[in-house]
Amino acid sequence: MDEDLYRESLELHRQHRGKLEVHSKVRLKTKHDLSLAYTPGVARVCREIQDDPARAYDYTMKANTVAIVTDGSAVLGLGNIGGTAAIPVMEGKAILFREFAGIDAIPICFAGYHIDFVEDVRNIAPVFGGINLEDIAAPKCFAVEEALQDLGIPVMHDDQHGTAVVVLAALLNACRVTGKRFEDLTVAVSGAGAAGYAVTRMLACFGMDREACSTVRDVIAVDRTGIIYRGRPDLLQNKYKYILAHETNTGNRQGTLADAMAGADAFIGVSAGGIVTEEMVRSMAPDPIVFAMANPTPEILPEAARRAGAAVVGTGRSDYPNQINNVLAFPGIFRGALDARAATITDAMKLAAAHALADFVVRPHRDHILPSILDKRVTAEVAAAVRDAAVANGVAGLP
Amino acid sequence: MDEDLYRESLELHRQHRGKLEVHSKVRLKTKHDLSLAYTPGVARVCREIQDDPARAYDYTMKANTVAIVTDGSAVLGLGNIGGTAAIPVMEGKAILFREFAGIDAIPICFAGYHIDFVEDVRNIAPVFGGINLEDIAAPKCFAVEEALQDLGIPVMHDDQHGTAVVVLAALLNACRVTGKRFEDLTVAVSGAGAAGYAVTRMLACFGMDREACSTVRDVIAVDRTGIIYRGRPDLLQNKYKYILAHETNTGNRQGTLADAMAGADAFIGVSAGGIVTEEMVRSMAPDPIVFAMANPTPEILPEAARRAGAAVVGTGRSDYPNQINNVLAFPGIFRGALDARAATITDAMKLAAAHALADFVVRPHRDHILPSILDKRVTAEVAAAVRDAAVANGVAGLP
Repeated sequence: MDEDLYRESLELHRQHRGKLEVHSKVRLKTKHDLSLAYTPGVARVCREIQDDPARAYDYTMKANTVAIVTDGSAVLGLGNIGGTAAIPVMEGKAILFREFAGIDAIPICFAGYHIDFVEDVRNIAPVFGGINLEDIAAPKCFAVEEALQDLGIPVMHDDQHGTAVVVLAALLNACRVTGKRFEDLTVAVSGAGAAGYAVTRMLACFGMDREACSTVRDVIAVDRTGIIYRGRPDLLQNKYKYILAHETNTGNRQGTLADAMAGADAFIGVSAGGIVTEEMVRSMAPDPIVFAMANPTPEILPEAARRAGAAVVGTGRSDYPNQINNVLAFPGIFRGALDARAATITDAMKLAAAHALADFVVRPHRDHILPSILDKRVTAEVAAAVRDAAVANGVAGLP
Repeated sequence: MDEDLYRESLELHRQHRGKLEVHSKVRLKTKHDLSLAYTPGVARVCREIQDDPARAYDYTMKANTVAIVTDGSAVLGLGNIGGTAAIPVMEGKAILFREFAGIDAIPICFAGYHIDFVEDVRNIAPVFGGINLEDIAAPKCFAVEEALQDLGIPVMHDDQHGTAVVVLAALLNACRVTGKRFEDLTVAVSGAGAAGYAVTRMLACFGMDREACSTVRDVIAVDRTGIIYRGRPDLLQNKYKYILAHETNTGNRQGTLADAMAGADAFIGVSAGGIVTEEMVRSMAPDPIVFAMANPTPEILPEAARRAGAAVVGTGRSDYPNQINNVLAFPGIFRGALDARAATITDAMKLAAAHALADFVVRPHRDHILPSILDKRVTAEVAAAVRDAAVANGVAGLP
């Protein structure tokens, strides 16, 4: 069946030669049309922007255009396949931006021998009103995103924050379903890459604007080596895991993923397929929440998690209930940030997105903690919340 | 009147917020659609390209996409206005690519503090099947274009070669109108920037594949300082003018533009408005050809040139006959190069474009030496000639 899907996908891509098309919004039939859209008329538009660069938002594509920037260093589950092989994913992302948020998105795939990723993004920024960083390997993705926060336009690594926002929304609604209090949760997070780091950060509020978040009781983060704890010898090589160890795991527990899951209220997997057993789920607190989001094979299959007593189960897959997918978040986050002409995407804006997403589900139940990824009304709700948060945060350029 | 045009152009840009839009070529209505265009289906497409990067031409936007790259250092007559203020021109160029050649073109405006323009272009290249360098100041534009010829995709600085191709076509037909032999022409070229250098180079065949060109008898190139001649003291500071001095001006004449024009068969102005007098035209050979292409004010107005005896007059303006405009060339050149999947744009391809453009005018007369810039059949003719030349040249990737 997967082979059939793959063949059909190849055929679709071959038939259309990619998925993106660039069109003109203006007419070009007469010499007068040309003189307005191009020379000599365009010279005046250039001069207006030269006088005040902010007018690029009024007169150019900038206000509605996002660059999807990658170096292809961590593409899907495929690893470091490089900029060229990453194009199909970036085009896919671009059409999601178009379909869900009406945003003009353009793939920028770096060839990879660039001198400095951060400077390269700064250098291509003029045309864009926002930068969606995509499929960049950890820990580089953290440093790159941090360094670009002063660019003056929203810069967000979706693999981190898009995921974290949707996970948070799902967890909020899973609490409503199970009757657990969010603030009392102990959460085991498996995976400390881009997604795991951002999810953990959001749940533990570490490094975040504390005004803008509410924290769970504890998070235990686990990577391939086991539980991340203060004093683990290898952490000195990785600044981000070092910080993580100091901001999570209040009891400084050591051990394996099984040890982390024992007694936990929720498991969040952004790691590898099949690494969680029914026994591990049985060791969790009563009515455990299990988000097994490894793709295409979850950390544990929903049937097995249910058998082991999981009260709510989510995966990344579309063929099970509760699909936890970034497409629920990033179109609305960028739409809201662009609408507000936000200078950056703050923690409060991400949190607002998560709550808007959770609240969109009026009566959550165990098989419906998130909206359908095909429900295009979601983007508008998320966008409005993000826009309002940007204004409240004082980072909006527009009233 | 110009003020009205400017106001109308500003309003057009404001109303549409720029001129470009990015669309999806595939449907995104069902989960199945998503699984084909995005994950998980897209993973297979990535793997195919990882195995053989050339398959990016089959499965992605690359085959039909051109980047319009600028640093905004020489935009129209506005000078070095930077990447942001240049966006409206790049968008304008992009919609010309769309309208005339069906090419998806994307503006890339460098912020300008990049370390190395050449490396920056290499770095963004994966998504693109061709690079149109645009509005880059001389002499940097020459070095940048030269250095990028090994990129494996066509890289052309349109301000140079687009202009040169159209001027050559116009000159060929002006010869047919006046009965002059191209090979016997003495040509005075005013301006030694991007356009002037490339025009001179093409007419004198210097630095070109000699098999692929036919040269005029002599070219005298003139810049702000006067005639460019061997031994002029300032040429040691400018490699390109130095080369130019050694490849033109067989008699090593010195003097002013007036001296260069005296006795010349043709004047080609890509310099500054109003610098040519009727007297200077009268000093030319009988039935002189005058292309006064400075914008918006030509080197000499057509009425004045005619009064002074010019047999054929062309300008860059749409309100006079014989508009000499790059849009007659670049869409077809890139269309042909993309269709051939050419690794580069050779001299023979440019020459083929010029001849195709000239031959498109079946019966040239003094007010009709070039097709109308609105005649969209031109692109197909130019493209076919360029494609054939690429194949004949052995630079085509496709049969």
